[in-house]
Amino acid sequence: MDPAPRLRTRRLDLRNGRVDLSHGAGGRATTQLIDEIFRPAFDNPLLAQGNDQAAFDVPAGRMVMSTDSYVISPLFFPGGDIGSLAVHGTINDVAMAGARPLHLAAGFILEEGFQLADLQRIATSMGRAARDAGVAIVTGDTKVVERGSGDGVFISTTGIGIVPPGLILSGDRARPGDQVILSGSLGDHGVAVMSQRNNLGFETTILSDSAALHGLVAEMVHVAGASLRLLRDPTRGGLAASLNEIAQQSNVGFLINEHAIPVKDQVAAACELLGLDPLHVANEGKLVAVVAPEAADALLAVMRAHPLGREAARIGEVIADEQRFVQMITSFGGGRIVDWLTGEQLPRIC
Amino acid sequence: MDPAPRLRTRRLDLRNGRVDLSHGAGGRATTQLIDEIFRPAFDNPLLAQGNDQAAFDVPAGRMVMSTDSYVISPLFFPGGDIGSLAVHGTINDVAMAGARPLHLAAGFILEEGFQLADLQRIATSMGRAARDAGVAIVTGDTKVVERGSGDGVFISTTGIGIVPPGLILSGDRARPGDQVILSGSLGDHGVAVMSQRNNLGFETTILSDSAALHGLVAEMVHVAGASLRLLRDPTRGGLAASLNEIAQQSNVGFLINEHAIPVKDQVAAACELLGLDPLHVANEGKLVAVVAPEAADALLAVMRAHPLGREAARIGEVIADEQRFVQMITSFGGGRIVDWLTGEQLPRIC
Repeated sequence: MDPAPRLRTRRLDLRNGRVDLSHGAGGRATTQLIDEIFRPAFDNPLLAQGNDQAAFDVPAGRMVMSTDSYVISPLFFPGGDIGSLAVHGTINDVAMAGARPLHLAAGFILEEGFQLADLQRIATSMGRAARDAGVAIVTGDTKVVERGSGDGVFISTTGIGIVPPGLILSGDRARPGDQVILSGSLGDHGVAVMSQRNNLGFETTILSDSAALHGLVAEMVHVAGASLRLLRDPTRGGLAASLNEIAQQSNVGFLINEHAIPVKDQVAAACELLGLDPLHVANEGKLVAVVAPEAADALLAVMRAHPLGREAARIGEVIADEQRFVQMITSFGGGRIVDWLTGEQLPRIC
Repeated sequence: MDPAPRLRTRRLDLRNGRVDLSHGAGGRATTQLIDEIFRPAFDNPLLAQGNDQAAFDVPAGRMVMSTDSYVISPLFFPGGDIGSLAVHGTINDVAMAGARPLHLAAGFILEEGFQLADLQRIATSMGRAARDAGVAIVTGDTKVVERGSGDGVFISTTGIGIVPPGLILSGDRARPGDQVILSGSLGDHGVAVMSQRNNLGFETTILSDSAALHGLVAEMVHVAGASLRLLRDPTRGGLAASLNEIAQQSNVGFLINEHAIPVKDQVAAACELLGLDPLHVANEGKLVAVVAPEAADALLAVMRAHPLGREAARIGEVIADEQRFVQMITSFGGGRIVDWLTGEQLPRIC
């Protein structure tokens, strides 16, 4: 069939071709997939070395490491795709420790039959997100499973980063009196993704807020320093899950004000339509900060001056509570407990 | 149904329970899965901090990072399971740079309906493999996909490690005259896994060679130092793929001797039965070293003194060859080219 000589391989058909099992076999087809899709998309000298690992120099100090697997459905959504999300999400997990992200590793689990054009589009988007963030994808892996044993593509990314000397941010550091600051409006990512689910056809112009937050974090660390207790990005489970987790870790409660929490009108409307609470909906470009009261104003000011924190708001405070409840004063002046979800509200949102 | 008060959750049913979508929602069920399965199995103080990332101190120097996704089928096989494999495989990718592995991150993609008992068995095996290797799983992530969108469990692990000062091992460092040393017999892992595939029922007592090689590597680095050019673990695609990759990276050829390559009788017999070439079959506890000729004897001696290198053998040498062929002198005295596979021989072998 193929008259090409032994070592001359026909190039991948990036328009009509599909992933097959040979692309995961570790032989020539795997190498071709890497050479023709991933390497050009991620383009950096460490990856180009072509070893099974990347090697680089690091300074002495405190390092963080974080990993996330991305199974979002659909793969493409308003404001992003699984590729950009896999870059932003893991950069953010690294940044939430106050760290400067250094490098990313990426593992792909492809389903046999997945379109190479979609894979290239995703890889290109990943590469762009990584370049924009100044964080290279330095090593990776590709596996292929039979048709029906996966779902298009799953991506696992792992990030490492360097924490500035002396800075310790951790979920167990919230103290009564600390202020809670949210960087922007809730629920954009979840609503943007839900709008694409074919069983939930509603119209919205909302885009996912998927973004890399390490630039914002660097400015926050610069201005607040040791007054910053912790940062967390309210992804799966939303702000409700983040605050409840922190309450458990720090053995405190929270008192937050619903009217202070920014939620876009369209997001609020979509949530009402779907029976969702914006506090439970996933975000991919927001963070919540817990900060000592004396540093709260300065922190809020620097956040509002950053493009990713323009709508930052002080939404409440940490209180002493052995029961570790997250309490909310509602917009109507009542009070309620903000629990985290026991069940699943939005499967495969990230 | 459940009369327990609000914060008292019924414990997971680890005997008959199954993964459901709520375990991936990032709420209370996810936390419960982590608290009752992963944290006890991986048991280490960094993971116990419960943040979305692990933080630890590193010395200044050369670091390596490597990631692999594991989709092996079946999940349990003679000599290991997907959990131990996900630890050993990634430790080995780190170790092939001559590095001392420092930490692992693990991401799980679970299929709805997967048995919690199997998940616990896998997590326990991972934890044991990590402890035995002295490398902790310090951070992780869990996602759940709907029934039919995954296949039980996929695991992605990422490892980081520290390279001894001055050591540079890389696939582009092979030079004509360098010696090629293999640490032991080929094909055990692939044959052990294939023996469990229900469409290929053959009997064998062969166990996977799945093992962490960093201890062996440390001794090799100690004795051979800068004379060591590179290490590679011949996993997917087998020794044939590893040597062909190195040939490409270093722009050299290889001349290897079939009679010098250790292959167990049962592995050779199984390969004959299945129409496989042991040179293409995956290994998970073997390495191939390329070393300057003057250091080969000392290296071979230290390898043979190590439990994971007892059958180490000098199998050939690097030759000048612009065509970058891997040539083999067969046991019958003839010659042939050892190509890497274009297609897939053993899907989901790791």
